[in-house]
Amino acid sequence: MAANPLDNIRVVLVGTLYTGNVGSSCRAMANMGIRHLRLAAPNLQNSWEEGERLAVHATDILAAREEFPSLEAAVADCVAVVGTTAREGLYRQHVKAPRDCASDLLSVAATGPVALVFGREDKGLLNEEIAQCTHLVRIPVDEGYTSLNLSQAVLLTCYELFAASGRYVPPREKAPPAPQAQKAQLNKNWAAMLREIGFMKEEQSDHFMQGFQRVFSRGVVTKDDAALMLGVARQAVWAAKNHA
Amino acid sequence: MAANPLDNIRVVLVGTLYTGNVGSSCRAMANMGIRHLRLAAPNLQNSWEEGERLAVHATDILAAREEFPSLEAAVADCVAVVGTTAREGLYRQHVKAPRDCASDLLSVAATGPVALVFGREDKGLLNEEIAQCTHLVRIPVDEGYTSLNLSQAVLLTCYELFAASGRYVPPREKAPPAPQAQKAQLNKNWAAMLREIGFMKEEQSDHFMQGFQRVFSRGVVTKDDAALMLGVARQAVWAAKNHA
Repeated sequence: MAANPLDNIRVVLVGTLYTGNVGSSCRAMANMGIRHLRLAAPNLQNSWEEGERLAVHATDILAAREEFPSLEAAVADCVAVVGTTAREGLYRQHVKAPRDCASDLLSVAATGPVALVFGREDKGLLNEEIAQCTHLVRIPVDEGYTSLNLSQAVLLTCYELFAASGRYVPPREKAPPAPQAQKAQLNKNWAAMLREIGFMKEEQSDHFMQGFQRVFSRGVVTKDDAALMLGVARQAVWAAKNHA
Repeated sequence: MAANPLDNIRVVLVGTLYTGNVGSSCRAMANMGIRHLRLAAPNLQNSWEEGERLAVHATDILAAREEFPSLEAAVADCVAVVGTTAREGLYRQHVKAPRDCASDLLSVAATGPVALVFGREDKGLLNEEIAQCTHLVRIPVDEGYTSLNLSQAVLLTCYELFAASGRYVPPREKAPPAPQAQKAQLNKNWAAMLREIGFMKEEQSDHFMQGFQRVFSRGVVTKDDAALMLGVARQAVWAAKNHA
């Protein structure tokens, strides 16, 4: 049982042609808190220089990669094998979007290693490789251009698992929300100020204040926002009385 | 009013250093059905050869790019300016994850151009550029490696808008679900077959059939699945009777 199911994810690249895509995948994995890379029957056409350059600060993932002669060998210890496919087909009808199965996959990853399998840059996974997958996913893409770069596919799949893991804590507004009494005070003080500076007459108040309330209702959310706008009303009244 | 709000999205890259990131961004945009690229004060350090190579089949987006001397000029016609930021800060508390504001941004994009703004590879957006943004987003990333490649950030942001647009129709299982009567028949025929081939005795049926029902309940979903497994029972009974 992994404390963090993401530690049980294995990104498996099959027959990869370019080290740059391996390096970019390492960086994408690190961005999403996934750290174990396996290469199955790699078919690399260029030197590791480009791969290391594109891994940037994720060269540790690149260096710790494991290599296997085949997909079968690379996923032998995995309790789920998730193939990624861009194609339609008779036995691919049950493919899901990564978002729709991310939670289920994390549940499985809490019990053992789960492989995310990505095919060759030029022809993806072969039928005999698809046949080894217990799950199939297809990333939603526009029908005008369905072919994703390999590392972009790795990124999006890892991103969905990371998002489902709940490990990301979104930034929170630190200022407390403005209570209604403060908002009422804001409307009242602005109405007084706008009359004081000659922006509107008493009989125009209802009309104009509806416009300002419209702006305030969307823009003034926190106590800090309200305090800022109350400060403007106070200073404008002071200026109108003292600079006259 | 755009028929497709994605047509009103403008990807704006500010001070970009490498043409490869521009090209990769074009491909990522095309994958997500977003087609309008703007470069604001580009600071490109290499030739367009790499950019064109990485755009692959999205060179039309690259060729149609618009260039502007500044962010201010690049977003002048936009009704919302969405800055992407990796950093925390006093005026960045209200940042949202792209997923949490994607629907709202599409609603705005139905009324006019919306800019998605991405900063420099090395230092992101400057404070004076952040100040021009009406919205701020931060992509959820692991705290161990928060710096995304530029085109990966473009991809993830466009992906969330594409996903929220509802333009992607997930693959659907074409076989209808198996009705309960067919599933009951499956259990009954398998029990008979398993006794016929000598796998289990009558008195063991309850015990073993619980195991098979466990497998069937998870694995047999459609009419086609059930028909396939019923065929096995029929053939095994035939073989036991005729090959004996």
